[in-house]
Amino acid sequence: MTEHNIPRILLDGHGGDSAPDVVLDALQSVITSSSVKAKFGVCGLEEVLGPALEVRGLHGQVEIVPSAEYIEMTDAPAIAVRRKKQSSIHVAARAVRDGGWDAMVSAGNTGALMAISKLILKTLPGIDRPALASMIPATDGSTFFLDIGANIDCSSEHLVQLAVMGSCYLQAAENIERPRVGLLNVGIEEGKGTDVVKVAGDRLKASNLNYIGNVEGTDLFSDRVDVVVCDGFVGNVALKAMEGVAELILGTLKKELTSSITAKAGALLSRKALQRVKTTLSPSEHNGAPLLGLNGIVVKSHGGADVRGYACAIEVAIREVEAGLIERTIEAMSAMVEGNA
Amino acid sequence: MTEHNIPRILLDGHGGDSAPDVVLDALQSVITSSSVKAKFGVCGLEEVLGPALEVRGLHGQVEIVPSAEYIEMTDAPAIAVRRKKQSSIHVAARAVRDGGWDAMVSAGNTGALMAISKLILKTLPGIDRPALASMIPATDGSTFFLDIGANIDCSSEHLVQLAVMGSCYLQAAENIERPRVGLLNVGIEEGKGTDVVKVAGDRLKASNLNYIGNVEGTDLFSDRVDVVVCDGFVGNVALKAMEGVAELILGTLKKELTSSITAKAGALLSRKALQRVKTTLSPSEHNGAPLLGLNGIVVKSHGGADVRGYACAIEVAIREVEAGLIERTIEAMSAMVEGNA
Repeated sequence: MTEHNIPRILLDGHGGDSAPDVVLDALQSVITSSSVKAKFGVCGLEEVLGPALEVRGLHGQVEIVPSAEYIEMTDAPAIAVRRKKQSSIHVAARAVRDGGWDAMVSAGNTGALMAISKLILKTLPGIDRPALASMIPATDGSTFFLDIGANIDCSSEHLVQLAVMGSCYLQAAENIERPRVGLLNVGIEEGKGTDVVKVAGDRLKASNLNYIGNVEGTDLFSDRVDVVVCDGFVGNVALKAMEGVAELILGTLKKELTSSITAKAGALLSRKALQRVKTTLSPSEHNGAPLLGLNGIVVKSHGGADVRGYACAIEVAIREVEAGLIERTIEAMSAMVEGNA
Repeated sequence: MTEHNIPRILLDGHGGDSAPDVVLDALQSVITSSSVKAKFGVCGLEEVLGPALEVRGLHGQVEIVPSAEYIEMTDAPAIAVRRKKQSSIHVAARAVRDGGWDAMVSAGNTGALMAISKLILKTLPGIDRPALASMIPATDGSTFFLDIGANIDCSSEHLVQLAVMGSCYLQAAENIERPRVGLLNVGIEEGKGTDVVKVAGDRLKASNLNYIGNVEGTDLFSDRVDVVVCDGFVGNVALKAMEGVAELILGTLKKELTSSITAKAGALLSRKALQRVKTTLSPSEHNGAPLLGLNGIVVKSHGGADVRGYACAIEVAIREVEAGLIERTIEAMSAMVEGNA
């Protein structure tokens, strides 16, 4: 967004379970919603994307950035990164790096997306490794949770970097002025947890972030914290455990509600209410996991996201560009380094 | 259970939110259920427990093991361990150590219970540190999950010990012949995770346990694994995150189901079904977290457990004694050491 005035968003035409249909249907819905002003491109095989855009009447409005190949969900990330250098993810990342586009969105293979983005875009000054984050639905609003699997082993320094990245993201994408940052731990009292976590806590206390101290797993769903930070092992396990319990509850509920005539009638009457519960908790409503810490904006959509979900991911990318996430993160990291100097 | 034939179970009369009432009501319900054959005692202040037993008509059937004081939920565990040496937990642990009783049950302060049990009962040969475990309701049956907070930092060796403890527990308490043991990780493929987890995986593969490899957070609720092992930091965070999401879903459901006349009518009709969902997921139905690896049987009840919940914890203790958990664990650890020799 330097000499031009609207965000330029490039979509990976091939990532995800139902590409390119979901990608282009989502794009169409974003374009027709009058509030959004942006330029859009889609990256991938011209012979596939051309007709698909044509059918949707988007041919003139959306630029095709051609790629010779694409990465399949079954490709091993490490191999795809090295052997498929003309993939849509590679081409899109280079387009963002070279300044032709402001952000990219992909529903492709997470491991490959992370590795290629890091390779091509590099990390921001002061950031050792990019992070993957997720928005968790809370009782009142939502909680930004990172890292959820990109950094399996974290030092105290990495945890501090995650806190900065998460805080800047909420400032930029959600317009929260001083996001409350918490460190995920086994208890809220000071002195809890591993040495790595304790040292990170001390450093965050001395920083200019709005650090509120230790938080527990239950706080992910409370409204006392905005950003919850942990290493990628803990984050990944916790996120999948949460998915597991949600599926168990909704599955049990469905089984119980179809087990007798009375319950069936009850289910019929309360169907709208149950639907709203599912919507509140639905990944579609919270889709668009940003890859943070990169020198370029990359948003990961869930591979199984529906049209509404993918559209959310596009909107996240637009907000990140408009709010200058990259510049904010560079500034915050530099303030952090000065504060510690 | 050497020269006598029935398990002798000693209850801490003072732990938990509603002691001694919940403790004694639960005991009464266990005693009146004809199937249970055991000798019971309750440890604590005689002037409190005497009248409480009298009121319930249990005075002749339940022995009082007197203690001069007890640990309050607000006491700092480290201080309580050293300064309240005549507490009901101390006295009960000594009674188990000295052979007068086979097992103790307490709903008291977890940290204090763990520390005192370790101090007085010591760990079994080959076990460095005791562990805390929880039974997770799964789609079909349940999953035994450890460590959930006793061991914040675990070496590969500790993870292997947890696997042995968990496996022996399910053999003893749930009568599962060859429990399937999984290592909690960020993916099921070999080579995933931290170095500590990778080395633990190699050792478990070489062991005589029924090790099935890596499992993910979602597998806690699947029926592909019986024992899920991780360090206490990961376990504690995951367990609390699961609690959080369950509360969020049931809370949202309740709100939605009382939001309109139609939904209210639906809720009325489906009330029994919703009640069954809550029961399936209720901590009461899965109460009784065993402290494992100690040279004596100690069962922790949730501090907020109701009568049904506390009764479950008593039943867990009885099963552990009847099945010879201690002897089984000693044997399995010794086989483990021989296997590695």
